[in-house]
Amino acid sequence: MNALETILTRRSTRNYRPDPVEQEKLDQILDCARQAPSGGNNQTNHLLVIRNKEVMDELAAMAEKAFSKMEPDENTYASLRRAIEASKKGGYVFHYNAPVLIAVANRKDYSNNIADCACAIENMMVAANALDLGSCWINQLKWLNEEPEVVAYLQSLGMKEDERVYGALIVGYPAAGLPNRNLMKQKGNEVTYID
Amino acid sequence: MNALETILTRRSTRNYRPDPVEQEKLDQILDCARQAPSGGNNQTNHLLVIRNKEVMDELAAMAEKAFSKMEPDENTYASLRRAIEASKKGGYVFHYNAPVLIAVANRKDYSNNIADCACAIENMMVAANALDLGSCWINQLKWLNEEPEVVAYLQSLGMKEDERVYGALIVGYPAAGLPNRNLMKQKGNEVTYID
Repeated sequence: MNALETILTRRSTRNYRPDPVEQEKLDQILDCARQAPSGGNNQTNHLLVIRNKEVMDELAAMAEKAFSKMEPDENTYASLRRAIEASKKGGYVFHYNAPVLIAVANRKDYSNNIADCACAIENMMVAANALDLGSCWINQLKWLNEEPEVVAYLQSLGMKEDERVYGALIVGYPAAGLPNRNLMKQKGNEVTYID
Repeated sequence: MNALETILTRRSTRNYRPDPVEQEKLDQILDCARQAPSGGNNQTNHLLVIRNKEVMDELAAMAEKAFSKMEPDENTYASLRRAIEASKKGGYVFHYNAPVLIAVANRKDYSNNIADCACAIENMMVAANALDLGSCWINQLKWLNEEPEVVAYLQSLGMKEDERVYGALIVGYPAAGLPNRNLMKQKGNEVTYID
């Protein structure tokens, strides 16, 4: 696939084989994150690459506990509402048991933190598709990025005092074999020409 | 170039030929934006594709006027500070006179607006590199996205009442011919493995 096809056919994968991702492929994915643009070429993204199953399980349990205490109202973002509802039922695993979870942190006092993390994550998702790996944006650690228990745990893993997570992704081999590469049906994403 | 090389070698271009971007190439770039992921597959990005020279000039003048009224303090983001200082001197053109400026708007009450716009912009910048076009992230319209005069003008161009710009990019043929494709020297973007 060329670059355009690879970008166009990136889709979210939520069902993974337990097989690990080869270090060589992971290195290529992380290089793509590190070459992403940043505000003023700031380069303050911090990539927390989690492959430890116990840490993954602990994060899932911590997130379920935090979400299950929340009460959504009519203004709650739909995806967050689903996380809250699933957590109250129990057995909610936000990272879909993928073999790799990459949380992207940045400085909390830096005004371009969300955009810089998003560019790095998008690069990694396209790179994963190029390597026949599936991936999916994971927002739960961003929603919980001021939850004291989650912040303390991530700091114990290496996140710095002045950092918070602004996005994450999971990567692995799709249970179905190759990633789904169907184009997304467009329901929005309007284009307006000003000529 | 394959997809990984195209991602890795995307660099910012700030000097353009006046030549227009072919419609076919622009269509491919916009398709890449529209296939970008969005929170809950929301697809509420709105791509304002500005090619009209008078509109470009009007936006540059409006931005210079707005920035020149600002007073930076020690907490002002470095890139914004440079925009303010350049505007006070006069002759500041935030879009570098590129032939195409694509402002990406999204709903102001939607919590994933910045991330969704950033993913679309990153896809477009990588796509531009694949097509031998230069590009550069443009943040000025985001910094001015509550400036009444700018909001009103963008609304007159097609931006909706409940939308604001959360990022933009310029695209065109680099003055130097092919885009600069040197890898970025890494000064940050730390990686921490949790195994």
